[in-house]
Amino acid sequence: MRSGGDPGRLAAQIAFLNEADRLKQVLRATPLCDGSRRENSGEHSWHLALYALILADQAAPGVRIDRVIRMLLLHDLVEIDVGDVPIHSANGTAHGSEETRAAEARAADRIFGLLPKDLGADLRALWEEFEAAETPDAVFAKSLDRVQPVLQNIASGGGSWIEYNVTPDQVETRVGTKVARGAPALWDHVRVRMQAFFGT
Amino acid sequence: MRSGGDPGRLAAQIAFLNEADRLKQVLRATPLCDGSRRENSGEHSWHLALYALILADQAAPGVRIDRVIRMLLLHDLVEIDVGDVPIHSANGTAHGSEETRAAEARAADRIFGLLPKDLGADLRALWEEFEAAETPDAVFAKSLDRVQPVLQNIASGGGSWIEYNVTPDQVETRVGTKVARGAPALWDHVRVRMQAFFGT
Repeated sequence: MRSGGDPGRLAAQIAFLNEADRLKQVLRATPLCDGSRRENSGEHSWHLALYALILADQAAPGVRIDRVIRMLLLHDLVEIDVGDVPIHSANGTAHGSEETRAAEARAADRIFGLLPKDLGADLRALWEEFEAAETPDAVFAKSLDRVQPVLQNIASGGGSWIEYNVTPDQVETRVGTKVARGAPALWDHVRVRMQAFFGT
Repeated sequence: MRSGGDPGRLAAQIAFLNEADRLKQVLRATPLCDGSRRENSGEHSWHLALYALILADQAAPGVRIDRVIRMLLLHDLVEIDVGDVPIHSANGTAHGSEETRAAEARAADRIFGLLPKDLGADLRALWEEFEAAETPDAVFAKSLDRVQPVLQNIASGGGSWIEYNVTPDQVETRVGTKVARGAPALWDHVRVRMQAFFGT
């Protein structure tokens, strides 16, 4: 349905899109595959959406890939305010802590609040579904978010594993169990590569 | 449907995803909104998919936004081999020339050819639909691809318009007519901003 005629609505949509541009400047711990620099959260979000498209056949029956893609496009927007908390870093325990969650909720208030009310509420709900990781769509989306850094670390020669002195057991516990929850065969495949990388 | 058990298939999917990572290193003429650096084609593809999600109400009736999003996730992959050809640059006429199209087709052969055959054929067809810009989904996707650099140029203080000495009439001809084809009300709105930027 075209709602073209409402300039206030369109101005709000554009304000949101211009604000989203800032995600391209949030740096992650994971490098690009060639190790030349760190990945930013904007290009990471694109890569993950592509993961969903390419690895759709790894999802459980009933997972709606287009909803997964929408979630992945939005999932890191709160990092514009909060930044990325690397899972393997010294303050990796902050990942998912109550404090981090509260800061992310405030960021979501501000960022989704830039949108027209109906649209902002829809997208906020999709982001919350991703965060809760309970529905099959969100569980699969989270699996992709966890497996991509593993493949980037292997390709780049260690990446954040070297930086933070990570062991294969820690990869299995912190990452593998979560990939396996939504994409078990994918983790079986990637685990072998991970173990070969560590020489275990 | 899970096809988890086929390691050859999964290896091909991962090879494609690792190759796609290189799109994060293809630079475009357009800067980020704050002008701090040029945008790359990976983060641009993410931003455009988000444009589709946010500006869905600007599409003609019958446009399937999830197909538009899939197209936009893929649309620049050939630039891994061919690079980005800025519309306003001296060789901007190369944009859409027969030579460029042939080079892009070879790139598509190689890149989509990394995938399992069925999947590669599906995604190649989607990319060709985007390039042909004939279906309503592709026309809308192209409109977004053309309007985003206008908003980035305005936000950053001129961007590629300054670099290539572009006039408002040239923006209207080279860009505006194409945005208006798929999203007329959106272009009416953005044209006003563009003219205000140029002081015309």
